[in-house]
Amino acid sequence: MTPTDTPGSPVPRTVADVGEFAVIDRAVEGRVQPPTTLLGPGDDAALVRAGDGRVVVSTDMLVQGRHFRLDWSSPREVGRKAVAQNAADVAAMGARPTAFLVSLGLPPDTPVEVADGISAGIWDSAEELGAGVVGGDLVQADSVVISVTVLGDLAGQRAVLRSGAQAGDVVAVAGTLGASACGLALFLAESTRFPGLLAAHRVPHPPYAAAWTAAEAGAHSMTDISDGLLADLGHIGAASGVGMALARDDIAVSPDLVSAAAILGTDYWEWVLTGGEDHGFAATFPSGVPLPEGWVRIGTVHDGTGITVDGRRWPGASGWQSFSV
Amino acid sequence: MTPTDTPGSPVPRTVADVGEFAVIDRAVEGRVQPPTTLLGPGDDAALVRAGDGRVVVSTDMLVQGRHFRLDWSSPREVGRKAVAQNAADVAAMGARPTAFLVSLGLPPDTPVEVADGISAGIWDSAEELGAGVVGGDLVQADSVVISVTVLGDLAGQRAVLRSGAQAGDVVAVAGTLGASACGLALFLAESTRFPGLLAAHRVPHPPYAAAWTAAEAGAHSMTDISDGLLADLGHIGAASGVGMALARDDIAVSPDLVSAAAILGTDYWEWVLTGGEDHGFAATFPSGVPLPEGWVRIGTVHDGTGITVDGRRWPGASGWQSFSV
Repeated sequence: MTPTDTPGSPVPRTVADVGEFAVIDRAVEGRVQPPTTLLGPGDDAALVRAGDGRVVVSTDMLVQGRHFRLDWSSPREVGRKAVAQNAADVAAMGARPTAFLVSLGLPPDTPVEVADGISAGIWDSAEELGAGVVGGDLVQADSVVISVTVLGDLAGQRAVLRSGAQAGDVVAVAGTLGASACGLALFLAESTRFPGLLAAHRVPHPPYAAAWTAAEAGAHSMTDISDGLLADLGHIGAASGVGMALARDDIAVSPDLVSAAAILGTDYWEWVLTGGEDHGFAATFPSGVPLPEGWVRIGTVHDGTGITVDGRRWPGASGWQSFSV
Repeated sequence: MTPTDTPGSPVPRTVADVGEFAVIDRAVEGRVQPPTTLLGPGDDAALVRAGDGRVVVSTDMLVQGRHFRLDWSSPREVGRKAVAQNAADVAAMGARPTAFLVSLGLPPDTPVEVADGISAGIWDSAEELGAGVVGGDLVQADSVVISVTVLGDLAGQRAVLRSGAQAGDVVAVAGTLGASACGLALFLAESTRFPGLLAAHRVPHPPYAAAWTAAEAGAHSMTDISDGLLADLGHIGAASGVGMALARDDIAVSPDLVSAAAILGTDYWEWVLTGGEDHGFAATFPSGVPLPEGWVRIGTVHDGTGITVDGRRWPGASGWQSFSV
């Protein structure tokens, strides 16, 4: 019987009550690894197949209050978000995720259900992607911190880089734009309307298949949209030494976004052009190549520098930065 | 001119003044990647060679106040510690580190010199290991949090697991035992004697070469000693379904440890047997195999369960757990 497990006193058990190793056991129990996991959790390190002799790898850290709020999102949704934003990074190279590693920092008074929920969201999302959760770490921290690393497999194909855009390319996007940013604005306004937009902020749904087909179709460059469309196209432009011209008439905006903007008294273009966290994809394709399913043309690549919208630079911030207020 | 850059007011610049992208640029500038780094930092993900079609991978998180203190250690030492404890995990499999990824959570008022120092320690240690730093993330957090992921290469050799110990094996260790735990006790007692032990607590120096030669010599099982000798041998015993008998007469204890224990009024065996964080290695070898250089025999593996010291279970805690007070 643990100290808090007193009859008549249904205090939730904390991770400190349960202990590090029990929390890890609860996360791993009953989970199955895919064939790419040659050695899963439990040893000093894991062993993952890298079939073509290369491994794609990326990492992201999420901090409570900064990247998620447990009064807005369930622990399971937080875990799903952590996997999605990492998986989008390897998909943006044209690769498929094979394995995730998760380091979790938790305050000792964290209810064990929160730890279990975050783990369940991570494992569920990894399994849906056909990937394993092969290792991790669990430590004491001042607030909830989730660090995820993803490994990916290109299956012998070239990686699609940010540096491959060429003048004359078509600029295209896949996935929603601005939905997460609009959902955040709705949360901050304490609105419960537009549940789909609130959900989009809680858990992104990157259109992974569109990224993989873009790579197969010969996209010259690709990135996931995490900092905002203009900021991320700016990364491609800077890496490739090119500029881009976009036209708002070519960018579809959902009616809900327009309605929400009217209610909140905001310009929805701000969400669409500078909101990240939907984790859609932006790519440039050689002109003449039919765009694969899920991709929409929004502009063209030209010699020079900078991203213009309807012929002008977009005023104001172009996207997310850490340490901004 | 930044807000804090006022003449006559030499306030240190913070990471918030400098901004996320500038902090990353400062870390990456002038650094060279090894040939195993096919694509380094700057894209959505990195690409690392995995020559034999497999990749060894492990991750660890370090939290300020829990795993390091910036009044005890320089930022550069903290970076070095983060790399060492991760590199020890892949070395314990018999693998060589090829690449590190680093996620750094920092309070916005962190002096930029702290961020630069942590990065420099990480890059310096990675370079000494012949490995690259291929990616990362920089986010705002309540305290300094460092999450490191390491990739490693087995070069076609088998991985040395915790589960391979067999009755009749020789139990051996490489590296120092108890130095870090003793250094911690000295720090807590505010003692400045035994600078070598204080240094051992700030930055571990895992005997990587001993781990690699143990794998080549046919070690049946191996682990790095991070939770404490008895706890980590317990992990091997549990994974292998065996017990072990150790003899204190076989375990060399440094004279400084004995002296420090006398001054602090402590039993040095507590440090030697239950102190982690030296990141030495423990392994079991088939009897009759000459132990490679750097390895010392401390006991034998037998049928059954449990780790005994001079024929008895060691009383008290057997090692480190997160969420312990």
